[in-house]
Amino acid sequence: MWANDKAAHWVGMTLDHVDEAAAVLSLTVEPHHCNGLSICHGGLIFALADTAFAYACNSRNQSTVAQHNMISFVTSARVSDHLTATATEISLTGRSGVYDVRVTNQDGKTIAEMRGMSRSIKGQLFTEEPEE
Amino acid sequence: MWANDKAAHWVGMTLDHVDEAAAVLSLTVEPHHCNGLSICHGGLIFALADTAFAYACNSRNQSTVAQHNMISFVTSARVSDHLTATATEISLTGRSGVYDVRVTNQDGKTIAEMRGMSRSIKGQLFTEEPEE
Amino acid sequence: MWANDKAAHWVGMTLDHVDEAAAVLSLTVEPHHCNGLSICHGGLIFALADTAFAYACNSRNQSTVAQHNMISFVTSARVSDHLTATATEISLTGRSGVYDVRVTNQDGKTIAEMRGMSRSIKGQLFTEEPEE
Amino acid sequence: MWANDKAAHWVGMTLDHVDEAAAVLSLTVEPHHCNGLSICHGGLIFALADTAFAYACNSRNQSTVAQHNMISFVTSARVSDHLTATATEISLTGRSGVYDVRVTNQDGKTIAEMRGMSRSIKGQLFTEEPEE
Repeated sequence: MWANDKAAHWVGMTLDHVDEAAAVLSLTVEPHHCNGLSICHGGLIFALADTAFAYACNSRNQSTVAQHNMISFVTSARVSDHLTATATEISLTGRSGVYDVRVTNQDGKTIAEMRGMSRSIKGQLFTEEPEE
Repeated sequence: MWANDKAAHWVGMTLDHVDEAAAVLSLTVEPHHCNGLSICHGGLIFALADTAFAYACNSRNQSTVAQHNMISFVTSARVSDHLTATATEISLTGRSGVYDVRVTNQDGKTIAEMRGMSRSIKGQLFTEEPEE
Repeated sequence: MWANDKAAHWVGMTLDHVDEAAAVLSLTVEPHHCNGLSICHGGLIFALADTAFAYACNSRNQSTVAQHNMISFVTSARVSDHLTATATEISLTGRSGVYDVRVTNQDGKTIAEMRGMSRSIKGQLFTEEPEE
Repeated sequence: MWANDKAAHWVGMTLDHVDEAAAVLSLTVEPHHCNGLSICHGGLIFALADTAFAYACNSRNQSTVAQHNMISFVTSARVSDHLTATATEISLTGRSGVYDVRVTNQDGKTIAEMRGMSRSIKGQLFTEEPEE
């Protein structure tokens, strides 16, 4: 899954750790990740968090997709900040999971808090039932 | 704002339209935007939607930041799909705004629905109070 | 469904309209709906919006439950305000739906914006898999 | 704050504990809290969680309001279930806070997970700045 994840590599993420129901990814903020104010684009902070969420919720070897995500941006990140996204499962009932992802910088300061809501599927992505 | 937005350019977005309280951006999905299943990475769909939201909520020339975002992924997007994110203001009270962003593909099919919650600030980004 | 909905009646809601993929409910704010500041409790504004969402997403005669909800409180409501919650379907793909509910007062002013994410089920509520 | 909170009393909540940045409230599900299927109305589960959130974020004696809330319903609750909502602060930066509230039943099973986003204010509710 990681070897073929072109987007995660292209953005510059590193897969630091993956375990059952948990994953840690990191990213060093480079100039091309930023907007004109040298602030890391929120979309890329989300991409990092969302990827940690994806590895955590797929860690049980059952195809699972992100269905909904909620992110709160707490503090901005700047060029050369090293961001770490830590995803933890907080609930799994039937095919529905809830995961929390905290993004921190190199000082341990919280940059963003994401909550991801997942759905396990069967060999298909997103459109779970063919629509009659 | 757009000229200096390195991240939006690097991801490959186009700014199609910006108006008071509204903005439209687009992105053609390329292989490096995708994971191993040739599905566009949700983080990049979010980045497109978030950028449309940012241009819509800053269109009144008052510095405004995304504080919280909620996204629902409806259908997956694939390589060479052309995605359009249309941001619309649905509420603005004092310094707090609510914006909806719909991401559609070239067939008009909905890919994702994002709701962005903004906060206007004064010449600063995110850390609203000076940090002691 | 409405006749047996004890909670909705107990709270004081009225079912004004229900149609395919849409519903309108209302509530007049009474003193017992408020906290010490004579502001309507956010939980009851949510309850009204959530009920409108439930009637909208069940209007197609397929058992459907609220799985996730996001609400933004825009302006406070006060005693004797008449609140109307209007739910509209914005997306339905397979078994997953997204609904927006706007709560307004008697002057048409927006009190809250809710987004509800539903899931259709089969003759059961919430616990999709039998629990071992 | 609690003595004047008519809505919380009317719904039947008990304030079990309040501390700096944390609060615990509980509710026994009665028939009038339920819909026709003897399932506790999601709006009342939200009301319980939202109240725990309110007491946690106001525990520092600075007027604070719920601005946005996200709730995931994990399992349904039934008549005579005793629900406990435990609110914990996970982030506080400037005037913006993020709180998580877990609602469990008497067996410790998770019923719902709520995330509340707060905003501290100054002697006013919600409309923070008069609009010019």
